[in-house]
Amino acid sequence: MAYKYLFFSDYSEGCHPRILECLSRTNLSQEIGYGEDTISLEAAKLLKEKIRIQNVDIHFVSGGTQANLISLASMLRPYESIISADTGHINTHEAGAVEATGHKIDSFRNPEGKVTPETIQCLVVEHRDEHMVKPRVVFISQPTEVGTIYLKKELEALLQVCKESNLYLFLDGARLGSALTAKDADLDLKTIASLVDLFYIGGTKNGALLGEAIVVVNDALKPEFRRHLKQRGALLAKGRVLGSQFLELFRNNLYFDLASHANAMAGKLSRGIKDLDFGFLTDSRTNQIFPILPNDLIEKLNKLYGFYVWSKIDDSHSSIRLVTSWATREEAVDEFLSDLRRLK
Amino acid sequence: MAYKYLFFSDYSEGCHPRILECLSRTNLSQEIGYGEDTISLEAAKLLKEKIRIQNVDIHFVSGGTQANLISLASMLRPYESIISADTGHINTHEAGAVEATGHKIDSFRNPEGKVTPETIQCLVVEHRDEHMVKPRVVFISQPTEVGTIYLKKELEALLQVCKESNLYLFLDGARLGSALTAKDADLDLKTIASLVDLFYIGGTKNGALLGEAIVVVNDALKPEFRRHLKQRGALLAKGRVLGSQFLELFRNNLYFDLASHANAMAGKLSRGIKDLDFGFLTDSRTNQIFPILPNDLIEKLNKLYGFYVWSKIDDSHSSIRLVTSWATREEAVDEFLSDLRRLK
Amino acid sequence: MAYKYLFFSDYSEGCHPRILECLSRTNLSQEIGYGEDTISLEAAKLLKEKIRIQNVDIHFVSGGTQANLISLASMLRPYESIISADTGHINTHEAGAVEATGHKIDSFRNPEGKVTPETIQCLVVEHRDEHMVKPRVVFISQPTEVGTIYLKKELEALLQVCKESNLYLFLDGARLGSALTAKDADLDLKTIASLVDLFYIGGTKNGALLGEAIVVVNDALKPEFRRHLKQRGALLAKGRVLGSQFLELFRNNLYFDLASHANAMAGKLSRGIKDLDFGFLTDSRTNQIFPILPNDLIEKLNKLYGFYVWSKIDDSHSSIRLVTSWATREEAVDEFLSDLRRLK
Amino acid sequence: MAYKYLFFSDYSEGCHPRILECLSRTNLSQEIGYGEDTISLEAAKLLKEKIRIQNVDIHFVSGGTQANLISLASMLRPYESIISADTGHINTHEAGAVEATGHKIDSFRNPEGKVTPETIQCLVVEHRDEHMVKPRVVFISQPTEVGTIYLKKELEALLQVCKESNLYLFLDGARLGSALTAKDADLDLKTIASLVDLFYIGGTKNGALLGEAIVVVNDALKPEFRRHLKQRGALLAKGRVLGSQFLELFRNNLYFDLASHANAMAGKLSRGIKDLDFGFLTDSRTNQIFPILPNDLIEKLNKLYGFYVWSKIDDSHSSIRLVTSWATREEAVDEFLSDLRRLK
Repeated sequence: MAYKYLFFSDYSEGCHPRILECLSRTNLSQEIGYGEDTISLEAAKLLKEKIRIQNVDIHFVSGGTQANLISLASMLRPYESIISADTGHINTHEAGAVEATGHKIDSFRNPEGKVTPETIQCLVVEHRDEHMVKPRVVFISQPTEVGTIYLKKELEALLQVCKESNLYLFLDGARLGSALTAKDADLDLKTIASLVDLFYIGGTKNGALLGEAIVVVNDALKPEFRRHLKQRGALLAKGRVLGSQFLELFRNNLYFDLASHANAMAGKLSRGIKDLDFGFLTDSRTNQIFPILPNDLIEKLNKLYGFYVWSKIDDSHSSIRLVTSWATREEAVDEFLSDLRRLK
Repeated sequence: MAYKYLFFSDYSEGCHPRILECLSRTNLSQEIGYGEDTISLEAAKLLKEKIRIQNVDIHFVSGGTQANLISLASMLRPYESIISADTGHINTHEAGAVEATGHKIDSFRNPEGKVTPETIQCLVVEHRDEHMVKPRVVFISQPTEVGTIYLKKELEALLQVCKESNLYLFLDGARLGSALTAKDADLDLKTIASLVDLFYIGGTKNGALLGEAIVVVNDALKPEFRRHLKQRGALLAKGRVLGSQFLELFRNNLYFDLASHANAMAGKLSRGIKDLDFGFLTDSRTNQIFPILPNDLIEKLNKLYGFYVWSKIDDSHSSIRLVTSWATREEAVDEFLSDLRRLK
Repeated sequence: MAYKYLFFSDYSEGCHPRILECLSRTNLSQEIGYGEDTISLEAAKLLKEKIRIQNVDIHFVSGGTQANLISLASMLRPYESIISADTGHINTHEAGAVEATGHKIDSFRNPEGKVTPETIQCLVVEHRDEHMVKPRVVFISQPTEVGTIYLKKELEALLQVCKESNLYLFLDGARLGSALTAKDADLDLKTIASLVDLFYIGGTKNGALLGEAIVVVNDALKPEFRRHLKQRGALLAKGRVLGSQFLELFRNNLYFDLASHANAMAGKLSRGIKDLDFGFLTDSRTNQIFPILPNDLIEKLNKLYGFYVWSKIDDSHSSIRLVTSWATREEAVDEFLSDLRRLK
Repeated sequence: MAYKYLFFSDYSEGCHPRILECLSRTNLSQEIGYGEDTISLEAAKLLKEKIRIQNVDIHFVSGGTQANLISLASMLRPYESIISADTGHINTHEAGAVEATGHKIDSFRNPEGKVTPETIQCLVVEHRDEHMVKPRVVFISQPTEVGTIYLKKELEALLQVCKESNLYLFLDGARLGSALTAKDADLDLKTIASLVDLFYIGGTKNGALLGEAIVVVNDALKPEFRRHLKQRGALLAKGRVLGSQFLELFRNNLYFDLASHANAMAGKLSRGIKDLDFGFLTDSRTNQIFPILPNDLIEKLNKLYGFYVWSKIDDSHSSIRLVTSWATREEAVDEFLSDLRRLK
């Protein structure tokens, strides 16, 4: 690749060096397998402290699709379905993983990538007929796939509707760090845990080699969760690998520092692009931004930098997706902005 | 744990240090995600060289259950089933992972943990009726779950029957290194690749942090295999993690050296136990052995060493499973034997 | 029920009397089970004659959801999906039956309830990425769920696109009789069989007690179809029950006569409603019509006649669905129109 | 077929004439679809009276495989499994229907075709490990596939163990009539309903055209059962067809009269065969018997009568299966016995 820098994703680099150090340090100790090693247990303990709720179950899995398909399968009876925005990761980029467990996704269009109380109510009413699936879980991503975030009052409103309609609220936190540390964000782990039935804390996209930490809040979802994991191939024999990621990420708040850095880099990119008078597809304050640029400019930029063209805006403009990470150097951002200024 | 040493499994330790060095060395390079990074591509290239067949597809996944469920689902139509020994890992220790993809396992008893041509023929005839599932894959493990290995002529005989009955032959190689380097073993990677339709080379149980390398031999099974992986949550965003394992394991034959060491340690254990006049459940030459001991002796040993009691032999005897690994120190073996001598 | 007449559906009555006579006449003959009885064989033979293509396989199942879920499962690999209009029966009124077999439905909005070549092309391009499902079947209903029909040139255009994109074309014919005998319809069974890979001929909604006849046209879909049927619980032990329906329905073209009658009754209703200056949701020429009426009028009508309110048009108007059947008496239609005139 | 008589099965003939009369009598009344018609409601009411427990839910489906797969799917979480004798219909002759819903069957050998308390306890202990499926349902057939029946005390013992291990007890009653009216049988519908969580009353094999009546006893299994039915394609649009079967079968105890007749015919066959000094595979008192005959005699008989060869006994003997039905004429039995006497 001759690119100056890749803004494809936040998983272009390896992991924070402290994680590799932890793996090395503990490498030859003998441990019990399948997530019951001392490192994973310690990591789970640490996470509970950070969440400040002891009464949750923590399970580490290797990736987001796994976290989604397993969590959802654990919540549903065969005829039950999931409410999701059409941009939801489960609805677009998981190769039908959820349907492969037997469940329909009831999706609907929302430009902000969000589920709203009104949509939920509407879908619940629409599906009263027993010839239809029955919605049982509301799936949201924090941040959404288009970089926006839910505020506390929005989550509270969703929870309210979920309670009224006997729905679980499930939060996909593949990029949760970025959402929690975003400008104007008003949520922390504890508040999230108090508002949803199950969520996960993404490691892969915030400095881990791999790994998501599933947090089971609702007591009804706790029993036999490990059999769900095993059945879907998610119980790593050397669970220590996953435990080590979260042990380091949550020691001394590294997780939040890394996310803040990614957000800061995206923010700088964003401001620089705005200064050149370009608009954006959404009002993202997280580490994914979606500037709208002329197609010929996109073409030129794309020879220098790796990124995805996201959506067509009109015949001569498209939005692109730029993603920064815990490892994005400020120089790369500056260089991108300077090239953009030059090429526009 | 107050155990002197764990013989529970071959995944008690981390990984060979070279793998951690590789991860560190390449940590900050930007790579494309989902297994298309330069490290994974190089690892796949190296594996093909070792297999000495270019015309295979290589995919890395994180564990054996994943490798099994995905490979089998990729081979089967809804009404098709899998022939397996009752001890087969898919039939016992994967929490119904294969059934969760919709398929029945046609199992039968075999004390050596092996599938035989006769059993296949018998099951195929038995299932001619369209009210029954239709066997389509023969699942074997090399070595088997009870430590025995298939010789070349045995695999050839299985292949012959599979061809006659239009069955795929699938080899679970979670401990393939141990089988290939076992005393009297007469198979190498190339021969295996020429005799089966799909197999995998286990990393987790032979010195990797995690990872199995699926080798798709049969052209009919190659298209869209990555969609199968994605759908089951097996495509790691940072595929480089898996690539690094196999790149190091197969550079300079480390994989075989590690397996030989594990076998040597099991061999020493085995000879020492035999010298004390104890028998064995099976004639294992791999890194899992199954000595038969008096129950009271087992109880005493179990206070000093971690291992599983495998099966009841009679009212006063049981078989236990002792597993050695790439990291087992000879001192641990010596100490075990000395304790055994003392306690018996 | 105090209704004067039910326009809920075309399955409100039993079956054409000739079918009951056939069941009585053959009742005590001993027959082989599971669809291999002489009656079913004769019915299949008769159907092939009517289709005027010998090289098709015929299977009788008890209902449309069964026909859909089995046919689709028989066509798909795990990661493959189905393209359907959002109104498609599989997408709305089968309680997630298709997803329960593991497959995603890629739906899109079309007011006429139709799939178009453009939509197919667009969805195929959109799903090139291997992180997504891969469309493999185009699902259409003839007539659609909103009463419209595909003309020959429309089916030809769909087939063309399907061939270009390696897609199967599957036609749900739960109300096929009504479509074939509709005004301006230009298709017959033979033409349909030459344009699709698999379709079914609905009996339940056109004078049978129960039963759909699946016609497998594409050779690739024929092997082991009966195992698919058995696995989904669709092989009736007394297959003669289903055979008898189709034997009578297709003797002397009863099937087409019954459908013509239903269409004529709907046509008369339709003209009468139009004469009163009401509009329609779609341009239906089949036995389901969707007049748009003021809500207060709907309320009054609904005290006299059974029917479903279909969709909201504006704050004071809705569309309703009126369905006629092979058994609808002309007097009922006249009475409805007279009441409508009086109440409006 | 040139056979004098078919002893293949109890579904060789159509249905009891009273059912056809009912279908004719009610044919043109307009009814609500999908099992909510007045006939089905009346049939369900009648069944509850016969069961003498009001607090059960009744659902009619078209066949046994459907009844089994739906009932089991309604009871299970993804990782849960079913305990069944290896001869269990779900384990052999349903083309993997249960596995297609995602669940493993834990089967074991029992020559009488029965599940015993000891087997349950043993399997539950064996599956404590979370790497394994978790047994949740005990599946039994009454009568078993080899014609034997459970006595009251046997069912009570099973229930006891099920309660201790948190297992559902599910009774497949495809031939329940035959079991209830068998010599020495000590169970009635009410007792069965008080001992199991869910069972079904088979119609197809006892005089109905088609149909099984699922009786949901356990309150936990009642909610949304109709969505399960719909999702698996089991809700017939013209539910009246199924309702009519059971309305007639349970009016004036026809169901039991028909079953008694079938048993009487099998009993006469059985005594006649015993008088000729032949033995039997099992001690069947129901309408399936399994005499053991010399292979050459079987061959001769098989030219005159239709029946299945069941299992090999030794090199020169096999067991055959003879099934009588509600419609078996005594003359056919006499003729068979006379031919047997002549040919032996």
